[in-house]
Amino acid sequence: MLRQATQRLDIATQGRGLIAFTDSVRNWLHGEHFTTGLLTVFCRHTSASLLIQENADPDVCRDLIRFFDVIAPEDETRYIHRAEGPDDMPAHIRSALTATQLSIPIVEGRLVLGTWQGLYLFEHRRAPHRREIVLHVIGE
Amino acid sequence: MLRQATQRLDIATQGRGLIAFTDSVRNWLHGEHFTTGLLTVFCRHTSASLLIQENADPDVCRDLIRFFDVIAPEDETRYIHRAEGPDDMPAHIRSALTATQLSIPIVEGRLVLGTWQGLYLFEHRRAPHRREIVLHVIGE
Amino acid sequence: MLRQATQRLDIATQGRGLIAFTDSVRNWLHGEHFTTGLLTVFCRHTSASLLIQENADPDVCRDLIRFFDVIAPEDETRYIHRAEGPDDMPAHIRSALTATQLSIPIVEGRLVLGTWQGLYLFEHRRAPHRREIVLHVIGE
Repeated sequence: MLRQATQRLDIATQGRGLIAFTDSVRNWLHGEHFTTGLLTVFCRHTSASLLIQENADPDVCRDLIRFFDVIAPEDETRYIHRAEGPDDMPAHIRSALTATQLSIPIVEGRLVLGTWQGLYLFEHRRAPHRREIVLHVIGE
Repeated sequence: MLRQATQRLDIATQGRGLIAFTDSVRNWLHGEHFTTGLLTVFCRHTSASLLIQENADPDVCRDLIRFFDVIAPEDETRYIHRAEGPDDMPAHIRSALTATQLSIPIVEGRLVLGTWQGLYLFEHRRAPHRREIVLHVIGE
Repeated sequence: MLRQATQRLDIATQGRGLIAFTDSVRNWLHGEHFTTGLLTVFCRHTSASLLIQENADPDVCRDLIRFFDVIAPEDETRYIHRAEGPDDMPAHIRSALTATQLSIPIVEGRLVLGTWQGLYLFEHRRAPHRREIVLHVIGE
């Protein structure tokens, strides 16, 4: 019998960085008992975003952060939108280049994430923030 | 009772720029009466794309456009594909870097878009175009 | 009556490049007989990704590959993560900038892909790999 479930996750960030939250998603999903379905993860912000990336070597996360620093630097002379601080417009650009939403199929009771795939919240602002993620699942 | 609905939106663009269309989506969805569900927005083009971005300060949109101008410039010496004009290959690159599809959960009868999140069509070509967006919703 | 179907596609890549696989998806979907629904395509890797791009002129694919070469070059001096070869960290970055997942509505028995839209697997590594794609469809 097809059905749905939704949940809100609050993630406290410590300023810029990638925060793994695959386990929080899996824990919630485990209690919902879906065998086949589609999980959607949605980030309710425009200065934080989502990423599926390698979960093995933390240097991958460091290099990713550095890449986005170079491509969309905190250089106010480049931007008109400066009212919310030098890190705000780069945060919007970095969000535009990554994902606001990700959907992951569930097969045989498990998310089909690959062995090396982890789900990350990418905080783009320098200050700590409380970020809201909405989870939606449909299936049976 | 789970059910689906689909709709086609036609958006006339005035050449390059970001066009907010959150209201068109909300208006259609309002008449479909879903309490819980998943809305998918799909752009049927490879030289226009989708973006969820800040809806408060229009300067954010200007800076985003400028960023993509710099990163994928209209410089024909860079591209082999030139037959459709100097703005076509940059349009394909800018589409690849943003989104062709976005899915947004519906909870308590509302899209879970954050307060500052707006849904935008990003027209990458210089000339006006008529763009087709397909909406799909599943839920109850 | 709403129902689901899932499938795994294995795609053998020949090293870096864009591999069209719209036909494999359409062939599978054809046998599943959905009139209205939502297809989700998920890539189980962090050094290969998904892209919807122009399917007419192969030069578009060449220019896209070249763009990502320039923006995230194979230059080890830029990266901390070097243990898996000079093409691994650029592969993670290029995956982050494109898509790990794409969802496409089905209307009147067909994927709503535009005339010029093709579905591509973007292999970012230099060596051939076997890549796993998971397909999920929900609808009726």
